[in-house]
Amino acid sequence: MKLIAVLSGGMDSTAAMAVCKHAGHEIIGAITFDYGSKHNGREFLSALQIVNHYELKINRVQLDFIADHFKSDLLKTGGEIPEGHYADPSMKRTVVPFRNGIMLSIAAGFAESLDADGIILGNHFGDHAIYPDCREDFAKAMAQAISLGTYKNIALVTPFQNMTKTQIVEAGHAIGVPFALTYSCYKGGELHCGKCGTCVERREAFEQSGINDPTEYA
Amino acid sequence: MKLIAVLSGGMDSTAAMAVCKHAGHEIIGAITFDYGSKHNGREFLSALQIVNHYELKINRVQLDFIADHFKSDLLKTGGEIPEGHYADPSMKRTVVPFRNGIMLSIAAGFAESLDADGIILGNHFGDHAIYPDCREDFAKAMAQAISLGTYKNIALVTPFQNMTKTQIVEAGHAIGVPFALTYSCYKGGELHCGKCGTCVERREAFEQSGINDPTEYA
Repeated sequence: MKLIAVLSGGMDSTAAMAVCKHAGHEIIGAITFDYGSKHNGREFLSALQIVNHYELKINRVQLDFIADHFKSDLLKTGGEIPEGHYADPSMKRTVVPFRNGIMLSIAAGFAESLDADGIILGNHFGDHAIYPDCREDFAKAMAQAISLGTYKNIALVTPFQNMTKTQIVEAGHAIGVPFALTYSCYKGGELHCGKCGTCVERREAFEQSGINDPTEYA
Repeated sequence: MKLIAVLSGGMDSTAAMAVCKHAGHEIIGAITFDYGSKHNGREFLSALQIVNHYELKINRVQLDFIADHFKSDLLKTGGEIPEGHYADPSMKRTVVPFRNGIMLSIAAGFAESLDADGIILGNHFGDHAIYPDCREDFAKAMAQAISLGTYKNIALVTPFQNMTKTQIVEAGHAIGVPFALTYSCYKGGELHCGKCGTCVERREAFEQSGINDPTEYA
């Protein structure tokens, strides 16, 4: 299949793209979004290094309306990023309403315009606790909407739907994913803070997999 | 229910909003999109007159990536608008890939941020021939994705899903919808051209309903 990767610059979307490429699919490009989060700038630097590594083109889409109108502590316009575990209730403050729905819809429009057959999303099992738009039932309904709403019946490809972050580290490691280039921290500093929910989740995934964590934490 | 209306400034979205208001729902605002079509500027003038008439607030969302990257003769970056009947195969050139999916996803994010219960879309039976993202099966899947992907289980309200444009004229006329303020023409001129697919469809709907057409055609 000819696929477009939704690529944030984080571990999950990078590994999802790499797994699809390794499985023999053609990755015809990546799409990334600036929705005004505290970490969009820093993670875009990672996304650029990743597409450079894999020799892909990337489109960056500006979603100014999210920063202007949506409420979330993930945004520059919101409060402080909570520290603690990724599945803690405090992480709910970092939800950007229907973010995956918006990104996937836009990716579907790009995919149809570029004559692609599908879109890769790196959502995984560990997202399910907090983010309604990462869960399997959402992904299934969205996949159906995208298939029915496009002439090409564009597919949604979610290789990690039922995998944990630890399994993503293992799967990525096995095919040489350059995890050192990826960025996860919600705070958006040059180095990973090591304390926010996504940093804690990233650390745990490497620890549990027994694979060396190449991340430099502040 | 507290509802947000997706309002283009055309007949269908205006009447859909009015029908929901008349049914007792609270319309807490309207959302409209500039995706770089030839008629977005002119139809926004109509949208402004309509929200003024109904005393609503409106948010206009810029979707520059559509004009920059998508292919459609509806866009300023595309070819000439075809003339003829709305259901003609030539109208396929005016499809903007997954436009309704993109608009609904963004509206869902706004709805959750504004604590609304649902989103109104004015899609109707006559759209089905050409536009995959107007059909009932698409709308059902998208409604499910939006409900599952939001904390509030936001609903998609489509009062005209199985109605014809003629029936929309009748339903709107019965509750005083100011159709004279609405704008349908894909060419985007000050007056309706009377020849493009949407103008032909608009004319026919008034003719078939037997209700006086208040539109001034060029």
